[in-house]
Amino acid sequence: MENFSFYNPTRVEFGKDKEKNIGKYISEFGVKKVLLVYGSERIKKDGLFDTVEKSLKENSIEFVSFGGVISNPIIKTVREAIKMAKEQKVEAILSVGGGSVLDSSKTIAVGSLSECEIWDFFLGKEQITKALPIFDIITLAATGSEMNGYAVITNEKTKQKFNIWSPLIYPKISVINPELQKSVSKDYLVYSASDIIAHCIEGYFTAKIQSQYNSGYVENIIKTVIRTTEILIENPDDYSARGEFAWAATNALNGTTTVGTAGFSFPNHMIEHSLSALYNVPHGAGLSVVMPAWMKWYYKNNEVQFIRFAKEVFGKNSAIEGIVALENWFNKIGTPTRLKQFDLDEKNISEIIKNLSFQEEISKDDLEKILNNAL
Amino acid sequence: MENFSFYNPTRVEFGKDKEKNIGKYISEFGVKKVLLVYGSERIKKDGLFDTVEKSLKENSIEFVSFGGVISNPIIKTVREAIKMAKEQKVEAILSVGGGSVLDSSKTIAVGSLSECEIWDFFLGKEQITKALPIFDIITLAATGSEMNGYAVITNEKTKQKFNIWSPLIYPKISVINPELQKSVSKDYLVYSASDIIAHCIEGYFTAKIQSQYNSGYVENIIKTVIRTTEILIENPDDYSARGEFAWAATNALNGTTTVGTAGFSFPNHMIEHSLSALYNVPHGAGLSVVMPAWMKWYYKNNEVQFIRFAKEVFGKNSAIEGIVALENWFNKIGTPTRLKQFDLDEKNISEIIKNLSFQEEISKDDLEKILNNAL
Repeated sequence: MENFSFYNPTRVEFGKDKEKNIGKYISEFGVKKVLLVYGSERIKKDGLFDTVEKSLKENSIEFVSFGGVISNPIIKTVREAIKMAKEQKVEAILSVGGGSVLDSSKTIAVGSLSECEIWDFFLGKEQITKALPIFDIITLAATGSEMNGYAVITNEKTKQKFNIWSPLIYPKISVINPELQKSVSKDYLVYSASDIIAHCIEGYFTAKIQSQYNSGYVENIIKTVIRTTEILIENPDDYSARGEFAWAATNALNGTTTVGTAGFSFPNHMIEHSLSALYNVPHGAGLSVVMPAWMKWYYKNNEVQFIRFAKEVFGKNSAIEGIVALENWFNKIGTPTRLKQFDLDEKNISEIIKNLSFQEEISKDDLEKILNNAL
Repeated sequence: MENFSFYNPTRVEFGKDKEKNIGKYISEFGVKKVLLVYGSERIKKDGLFDTVEKSLKENSIEFVSFGGVISNPIIKTVREAIKMAKEQKVEAILSVGGGSVLDSSKTIAVGSLSECEIWDFFLGKEQITKALPIFDIITLAATGSEMNGYAVITNEKTKQKFNIWSPLIYPKISVINPELQKSVSKDYLVYSASDIIAHCIEGYFTAKIQSQYNSGYVENIIKTVIRTTEILIENPDDYSARGEFAWAATNALNGTTTVGTAGFSFPNHMIEHSLSALYNVPHGAGLSVVMPAWMKWYYKNNEVQFIRFAKEVFGKNSAIEGIVALENWFNKIGTPTRLKQFDLDEKNISEIIKNLSFQEEISKDDLEKILNNAL
């Protein structure tokens, strides 16, 4: 096992009706005014906005709201929200929505206490030294943003989809009520399943130092996602499956899947970020296209682990059978596995490669091979 | 899944040489003087004391030391240390040792800021409202105390072995260097294995609400303990196995094994606490006697889970086969499974039952049946 530091100070409030206490949770931190960030107006129709408003008022917390965050969130929106946060002198950011809203909120929390150009933090030109406290009610289980210090934002002008990380942008308190996630469409459910699995497999397959404890831990998350996705496609109201799916999503990217491992990278995410920055495809859908293609190209570098994956997750005996089983499962649940499902073909491959943020030790030739596997 | 709050603010510094930074870690909290609590003088012989002293000095942290904590630590020792901590006006407690030293240190941290009788906190007569910050270097993987808010202490006069819990006594920073744990004797290695497995199975078998995610998570810890214990018996210097064993121990009692479950209890621990309070047997050794006996009595209450355990952990097909496989494994590694191995027999059973802290919904008749299984 490799040396590591593990620290995750986010408090998770998980379960039914927990969102009704959001005002109480925020008041524990002495906060008197928040910026409430959200996406579509759906939260006004389904009553969540009212619930939040009521809880904030009961706890004498003022708020101003900022809606309109889109998926694959863009830096332009974040800039507008930072302006509002500064003008309104809010003391914290409250995110109500999915990972896009939360990632935007984290960035707003940084920008609200800085006079620097916000994109410079994503370019590594500026370091995060302070941020407003962040609270959230997460309405989609996928990104794991509710229990980590990452935020991913797209620069719509430069077509860069980059991320920031800081211990200062872990949410103080994340509310995860599986019931709030049951209205997610079937499409977004299966894209989320793909996203969670992608978070799991990057470290699992690429780490130079890996432990069996860790492999078993990750396989348990993947098996949970596979089992509960199938239940939820049939019955979106299954609370128990919805809960396990949500908790698996949180654990897939809260730092626990890679502790003690070393030398891992995120090639699938890097390739997908180029894809979704260029063509605005849903992140999880892009990942289910990239993963089997990357796995077919990569598996010989770590065949022992691919055989373990095949056996433990799908009861198969060879690396290739495991990869095909995953691809078949993606097809079965209805998340894309081919570029043509996005109306993309070989003509787009060079553009995707050109737009990659970094090469992650993969040469252009190899990237072509990977993307050719996805045709 | 049941509603839950999850919050674990302990920072873990895991790996080789991490103890050399202990002064730096403590100085991050602005602490200028600590009480260094330890057990036997072994840490002076093996150089750990010197390493700690050097790091504290380099970071201008004064210290006074308090040695002599024994396993199954007693409240008398804790009282002496509290007196010293108050007289010396220390600002934090630094524990260097195993779970007994750390549990004592947590109690000292509470007592140092209180004028109440310290045992009253264990009796529930006093509530913990403040505590000095706690830091530790853990030299034995077993209790999980390095990442939780529990402390277990024995009142040597009343023969009560009770615990306290508070979010205020999570260690601020825990140093886990597997290399420091390799000098643990073979006996204590196998007792530790038993202790970790006991932490896992209590919730796993007794919870009224259980999730498959959780069951898989727990099984991965148990399987890791079984695999790495066997490696470490053969080769105590196997760093990788030592690391996995240590990290499994931490995760077995840091709150992650029971999140989302409900209605669980700790019958094996309660029975064992009576046993070790009366006869001072090593905690893990007591547990490996109690567990198979309790399992044979209990399994029909939750046969589905016992069959799952048999299958997933030992590749067996029935509840009884799983229990026998665990008992056989305890025998194989050399941790006791019968009361007679402590020179106890049927004459002691009523004394053990009489000394139980609470009945945990188990009647006297049933306790007799359980303990008879252990003869």
